[in-house]
Amino acid sequence: MAGPGKPCAGLYSFLFEYDTPRIVLIKSRKVGLMNRLVQLAILAYVIGWVFVWEKGYQETDSVVSSVTTKVKGVTVTNTSELGLRIWDVADYVIPPQGENSIFVMTNMIITQNQTQGLCAEFPDKTTRCHSSENCTEGYVGTHSNGVQTGKCVTYRETEKTCEVFAWCPVEDDEHVPKPAFLHNAANFTLLVKNNIWYPKFNFTKRNILPNISKSYLKNCKYNSKTDPFCPIFRLRDVVESAGQNFQEMAVEGGVMGLQISWNCNLDKAASYCLPKYTFRRIDNKDSDHTVSPGYNFRFAKYYKNAGGRDSRTLIKAYGIRFDIMVFGKAGKFDIIPTMINIGSGLALFGVATVLCDIIVLYFMKKKYYYREKKYKYVEDYDLEANSSYGSQAETQEGCRIR
Amino acid sequence: MAGPGKPCAGLYSFLFEYDTPRIVLIKSRKVGLMNRLVQLAILAYVIGWVFVWEKGYQETDSVVSSVTTKVKGVTVTNTSELGLRIWDVADYVIPPQGENSIFVMTNMIITQNQTQGLCAEFPDKTTRCHSSENCTEGYVGTHSNGVQTGKCVTYRETEKTCEVFAWCPVEDDEHVPKPAFLHNAANFTLLVKNNIWYPKFNFTKRNILPNISKSYLKNCKYNSKTDPFCPIFRLRDVVESAGQNFQEMAVEGGVMGLQISWNCNLDKAASYCLPKYTFRRIDNKDSDHTVSPGYNFRFAKYYKNAGGRDSRTLIKAYGIRFDIMVFGKAGKFDIIPTMINIGSGLALFGVATVLCDIIVLYFMKKKYYYREKKYKYVEDYDLEANSSYGSQAETQEGCRIR
Amino acid sequence: MAGPGKPCAGLYSFLFEYDTPRIVLIKSRKVGLMNRLVQLAILAYVIGWVFVWEKGYQETDSVVSSVTTKVKGVTVTNTSELGLRIWDVADYVIPPQGENSIFVMTNMIITQNQTQGLCAEFPDKTTRCHSSENCTEGYVGTHSNGVQTGKCVTYRETEKTCEVFAWCPVEDDEHVPKPAFLHNAANFTLLVKNNIWYPKFNFTKRNILPNISKSYLKNCKYNSKTDPFCPIFRLRDVVESAGQNFQEMAVEGGVMGLQISWNCNLDKAASYCLPKYTFRRIDNKDSDHTVSPGYNFRFAKYYKNAGGRDSRTLIKAYGIRFDIMVFGKAGKFDIIPTMINIGSGLALFGVATVLCDIIVLYFMKKKYYYREKKYKYVEDYDLEANSSYGSQAETQEGCRIR
Repeated sequence: MAGPGKPCAGLYSFLFEYDTPRIVLIKSRKVGLMNRLVQLAILAYVIGWVFVWEKGYQETDSVVSSVTTKVKGVTVTNTSELGLRIWDVADYVIPPQGENSIFVMTNMIITQNQTQGLCAEFPDKTTRCHSSENCTEGYVGTHSNGVQTGKCVTYRETEKTCEVFAWCPVEDDEHVPKPAFLHNAANFTLLVKNNIWYPKFNFTKRNILPNISKSYLKNCKYNSKTDPFCPIFRLRDVVESAGQNFQEMAVEGGVMGLQISWNCNLDKAASYCLPKYTFRRIDNKDSDHTVSPGYNFRFAKYYKNAGGRDSRTLIKAYGIRFDIMVFGKAGKFDIIPTMINIGSGLALFGVATVLCDIIVLYFMKKKYYYREKKYKYVEDYDLEANSSYGSQAETQEGCRIR
Repeated sequence: MAGPGKPCAGLYSFLFEYDTPRIVLIKSRKVGLMNRLVQLAILAYVIGWVFVWEKGYQETDSVVSSVTTKVKGVTVTNTSELGLRIWDVADYVIPPQGENSIFVMTNMIITQNQTQGLCAEFPDKTTRCHSSENCTEGYVGTHSNGVQTGKCVTYRETEKTCEVFAWCPVEDDEHVPKPAFLHNAANFTLLVKNNIWYPKFNFTKRNILPNISKSYLKNCKYNSKTDPFCPIFRLRDVVESAGQNFQEMAVEGGVMGLQISWNCNLDKAASYCLPKYTFRRIDNKDSDHTVSPGYNFRFAKYYKNAGGRDSRTLIKAYGIRFDIMVFGKAGKFDIIPTMINIGSGLALFGVATVLCDIIVLYFMKKKYYYREKKYKYVEDYDLEANSSYGSQAETQEGCRIR
Repeated sequence: MAGPGKPCAGLYSFLFEYDTPRIVLIKSRKVGLMNRLVQLAILAYVIGWVFVWEKGYQETDSVVSSVTTKVKGVTVTNTSELGLRIWDVADYVIPPQGENSIFVMTNMIITQNQTQGLCAEFPDKTTRCHSSENCTEGYVGTHSNGVQTGKCVTYRETEKTCEVFAWCPVEDDEHVPKPAFLHNAANFTLLVKNNIWYPKFNFTKRNILPNISKSYLKNCKYNSKTDPFCPIFRLRDVVESAGQNFQEMAVEGGVMGLQISWNCNLDKAASYCLPKYTFRRIDNKDSDHTVSPGYNFRFAKYYKNAGGRDSRTLIKAYGIRFDIMVFGKAGKFDIIPTMINIGSGLALFGVATVLCDIIVLYFMKKKYYYREKKYKYVEDYDLEANSSYGSQAETQEGCRIR
């Protein structure tokens, strides 16, 4: 980018002169081959791994998802407490609709006809008493059912506990029914409808694929091998695909993850963008390192009796909550990640030169010879100016030290 | 990076010598101009596209969002079954509060006073029968309302179906009310309050902008042109903005996506970070390639009659679920993506040199001449050592082959 | 990459010749040192900032999360309207289970024994009237409780409002109870169980760490200093950690964000991947720039009286919704971001040369001398061919203009 002093001439030389680095071409079979091999390795890495395998030429976007679910199935139970009872969707799906998760009750502890009043608290080490001295009026513990009154009353024949003001009778959740009360829930079916959208590429798709017919959907059940795109899952299959046992899980409940992964290459046709279902147990089975194992919560049905008095049925519902977790990335060709990777690749080619230079200039027998050929030593101006000067010397100088 | 043998001298020359590539300056207008044009194109790509358009100098972060919703509106219905009835928020929003989605019931099939007992199953091809031989005791199908007893009983005057133990009478969901029962839901309003956070930049903002006054909020309705930042949406407007018909959608229900996109450039003032609302129908209208079209679910209200016997009202609720989908990215200047893009851009400049080299050295008339100027051929040391040697020859050699 | 004309010879020279740029080595202490300093700065940036600080050698993935929550606690209230009442989990958590958020009612306006019928609307500027002329039959406003009949009736002794067909008596939500009705909710505890998954690295972890024992979990409470990994939070602590006052927030309700951030370096042991809890108030406290401040929603409990007539208790529930927001990124070594950053770093080294070149060739005293050493001027072939030719001139030429 040199030129005579004037700006116009400077611009002229800038535009109309082509500057290219001067290259020293060393005829050495060993070094030449090594140089080409290193360059080939870098090229293989850039083309093979970065572009073909990892799709480094693509821009990515995360999925935005919407899920609707529906459970179907009925079961009958027969216990001394409740008698013969039918349970359908409105009875065991709580709450009746949700967004990305659905709870199916599989077991329960039911306390009927609770009314607000005074009764004996449930026995545990903080509530058992011998006399009123063991009870404190107004005391509420973390696990209390009510507020203590200060009196000590009979809970059962042989046990006395502190009296509380609570919904009476208090719940007895010591023994969870085993086997699970609604053990037939294993045969219920879960329909999952999922709509995904990649905003950056304005691409939408549903998990009920366009080529699936209505008649197929009416009767199919998901199977990873035979029916991988049927959106209807038998609850037992979901649990067993995660390596769990449904009946075991149904006793104390749990959380199952139904993972739908959408990893799409949008440079291909849209029909290649397909959902992949996997299943995973999310709660911790190991009850030694967790608190409140399984999955349960309490809810109540409220009634007014003839006198207008409030009463309720408290239900501690154990069950399996199915979390539909949708995730994934779409990739599509974009010039910027392509150029970044090409640019970085080009820069990496320089490594081949650095490597071979080190070998040629420091480790080969002829290193001093090669150094002489590669480097043009330029002494400090003053030194040259002061040395013996004459056209003859200059020619000699200019010619020898290159 | 050469120097005499000793390490101190090596370090001295490493620190105090400056190495720069030797450049061959070819005065050729054609090649010079082409070189500058290619370099200009690369510069335009890097500065124009990468930095200005795609903001390649920015680090990005995804949004973390929280949404609250509230619906307002009442409507009156008058049917022979239910009589004159008012429906307000507590009646049609189920469940009463949710996180990112809200369901508004627009249509329903109500089955009142169900009690557990024996009755005829709803007629379909698996339940119609002529005699008990067609019914199997204990059989439960996917769409059953209850468990079959094995008997065949009269459902209606001319129809007989298998008897089941179920909540009786069973639901008749063959005919969905048309027009929709709560068709006035079109006039209900939905308030959406959204708080977003970009953790990486610790930036928060709400969709109710700081400059909006309380009095404006009390009466405004969202309109993409006149009131683009009013957070109150009329349900009909939401549906119509997605190109759908509310009354048509209200019959079998559906899922509407209310998308709030927050794409913010945090290098500008916070006031430029604004939400953008778009609307999209999420469920599949095409009933030929879907199962369970529209959106519905069943729930029940439980009662105890005077005798303490359980009864319930089963409601198959059809309606529109509004999913509030919040997404977006924020960008802010960061040195690393900037340097990556500058580095890749610098590496790409090398492409201009490679291109012009190829043209100059292989395609121009004077290619051999230019090659001679560009390359300094270095023979194998042995060959040079063995050739005729003398200061004169050396000078000649050194001077000629450059 | 030159060679004789024939392709085989071309391939031979391509493979077995090593080309390296010719370097001009300028012995200048000033420029040499400056060059090394700029290169050192670039190296420090690449190694220090890009690799060590920002972990530029890592690939990242976003978290996929599942949350379960459980609240514990009871409280007693005593008002003239409701008398002495106990409130437990089934009474104040609405709905009883959710996914990522849980609502705890802290205050309420209760309207008991509502039945459908005709009564006076709640007074506000659109409903007050003097005579039937002020009321329009069939009119429904955004905040109406029912549909106007057109008559003007007495609401209270001194006030007359339009008559409506609604659930009567209409709700009076003018005065929110202060202090909050369930102010003791401050002592309730919230257990959060969170399971996270990084799909790209197939790494899962729970917030209840493997080394935490069951006995510790039974009694611990979260504290950012003493118990940073206890998953049980006292509601008051959550609110106060965000700099808010629980009792103040409990009156009109609000939304609290319980943020769990999982930023993990998966090149280290899994035990270093720990959750970090932060708390933030999400709703806008400033009631001048918001509509419907706080957080509330209406729900109803439905009853049938002896005659089979529907009645309901309407509850406008104010409370705190706790949104569990899980986010974070995991990083793990990956060859591609490493190579991209190395490549860009290498390209940036070229900046040192460009900078020093500019100084050496344009700003130093000896710039013309150095330009002579750096550049090899190549005239247009024709000019050279036409100039005086002779071996003597050529030698002179060849030797002088280098």
